[in-house]
Amino acid sequence: MSLLLVSPNRNTKPFVEAIHKIDPNIDIEVWPTVEKPERIQFAVAWNHPKHLFDKFPNLRVISSMGAGVDHLMSDDSIPSGITFTRLVGPSLSGQMCDYVLTSVLNIIRNTEIYYQQQKRGEWKTHQPLQKRDITVGVLGLGALGSSVAGRLIENGFSVNGWAATKKEKDGVNTFSGEELDDFLAATNIVVCLLPLTEKTDGILDLALFKKLKQPAYVINAARGAHLVDEDLIYALDTGIISHASLDVFSEEPLPGSHPFWGREKITITPHIASLTDPDEIAELLVENYKRLLSGMPLLYEVDRKKGY
Amino acid sequence: MSLLLVSPNRNTKPFVEAIHKIDPNIDIEVWPTVEKPERIQFAVAWNHPKHLFDKFPNLRVISSMGAGVDHLMSDDSIPSGITFTRLVGPSLSGQMCDYVLTSVLNIIRNTEIYYQQQKRGEWKTHQPLQKRDITVGVLGLGALGSSVAGRLIENGFSVNGWAATKKEKDGVNTFSGEELDDFLAATNIVVCLLPLTEKTDGILDLALFKKLKQPAYVINAARGAHLVDEDLIYALDTGIISHASLDVFSEEPLPGSHPFWGREKITITPHIASLTDPDEIAELLVENYKRLLSGMPLLYEVDRKKGY
Repeated sequence: MSLLLVSPNRNTKPFVEAIHKIDPNIDIEVWPTVEKPERIQFAVAWNHPKHLFDKFPNLRVISSMGAGVDHLMSDDSIPSGITFTRLVGPSLSGQMCDYVLTSVLNIIRNTEIYYQQQKRGEWKTHQPLQKRDITVGVLGLGALGSSVAGRLIENGFSVNGWAATKKEKDGVNTFSGEELDDFLAATNIVVCLLPLTEKTDGILDLALFKKLKQPAYVINAARGAHLVDEDLIYALDTGIISHASLDVFSEEPLPGSHPFWGREKITITPHIASLTDPDEIAELLVENYKRLLSGMPLLYEVDRKKGY
Repeated sequence: MSLLLVSPNRNTKPFVEAIHKIDPNIDIEVWPTVEKPERIQFAVAWNHPKHLFDKFPNLRVISSMGAGVDHLMSDDSIPSGITFTRLVGPSLSGQMCDYVLTSVLNIIRNTEIYYQQQKRGEWKTHQPLQKRDITVGVLGLGALGSSVAGRLIENGFSVNGWAATKKEKDGVNTFSGEELDDFLAATNIVVCLLPLTEKTDGILDLALFKKLKQPAYVINAARGAHLVDEDLIYALDTGIISHASLDVFSEEPLPGSHPFWGREKITITPHIASLTDPDEIAELLVENYKRLLSGMPLLYEVDRKKGY
């Protein structure tokens, strides 16, 4: 048996080393130079070319290299009998908590305004938003969303959470399904951590922005396709949204001609909210690989019908 | 008896209203229009003119309007028999925790680098500093320093603390007095929250910067005089310090000609780490005023010999 690594345009060496540090006996094949495709039962992949998995007759599991599985879900050439899993390491989740907390703090403390003032040599005080006056709303209460909500609460924020099905989380005012409008009406800073599915594609649109409590802010750390770009521009221009912090985009890298770049009310980061750490990923991968070989239930299995 | 408010160049009306909301019977005089100076026993002051307090024969207590008392300590015209107190409200402390946490997160997550990239339309990923690889060191473990250290720990940071005399704080690796060099050698991000005294004036100098663990960063949220400006410039130019976040300056507003403004490796904020909230200040003030009138021990009394 062997494990397949698929990650175009990325140095896979640190991943191979990290896996072999844990178990030097694991046979690893790195796409595109696969010697014995029939031995592959488990693959770990990020941004694979479509139809790639046709070539592995005994493949049983494909693990995403990160938390998102939309790159797997969107490939309808993958047989339905193949199981998908995700990798949600403590550091991925911790990094995401840090990203969202940093973005929220920078919004309430006017950080970007002070950066712009500094460029002009201007000394001017702005009242911060008080935590008692604003509520953060997390869209998506899976492993990441739930951790993020918890961290925000630890830091003194009032937090709402919404998920498709009812979830409970200590200290979070949770909403589900049809209660989305109630969630939005009680939320100033909406944080998108949803899985990308047919239902959530384009969810961050003008209709949603208009339902938020004023002043309203958007943080998108999930997928670019959750956001309707032109609706955000319109909402910023009309004051419906005061500021947006975006880490993900419909096209990445964000094209140089995209109107987001020049906007002072948009903070752009290049998909860095949560970067995979080879050492940590390796631990989880080896664990799941061995579970597969020994017939044990897998960790972080994805419901392929729901898409997350 | 009456209470005196002294705060030049500031709208004192919200403070008067906030005090009267708690107790409408408190007589308040607002400098410079004081009608009965002999009735003043308690003053609250920020940036008062020197010799002002000569005019109040029955004055017993002066409260700073904030956490700092250097503006009182530096006025040697104030008789030694007058007691100094400070105002450390939960929001002042909470705001300072937020300021330091935001600054530390922005350092490790390369926020300022991404802001600069955005201006150029550049998409480029930088590895964040990992929390496991860096230690934050808090200089000063009084009410503020201790809260800040605690909040950093809650957010997963390793934290050292130094104070003139030995202090204990859960989870903080504490140093005192002569152990300053040991503290610095184990610290990457030094956060100054010291009181300003003869001993701490100019403490953030080249000699100190050179003793920090690499990569090294400076956050100053105490007083501008703690920092030797030209030493910071030299340390940034030579790579001894990688980045500095400064909220306080020797001269405020920071003069337009000051070299700090144009530096990409310095983040400047206009003394906004912790802004006083009239409603909160009023609670503490009224409490201390009533304690004075009823002969009870005062809260947040300052040791005038030590200067904090």
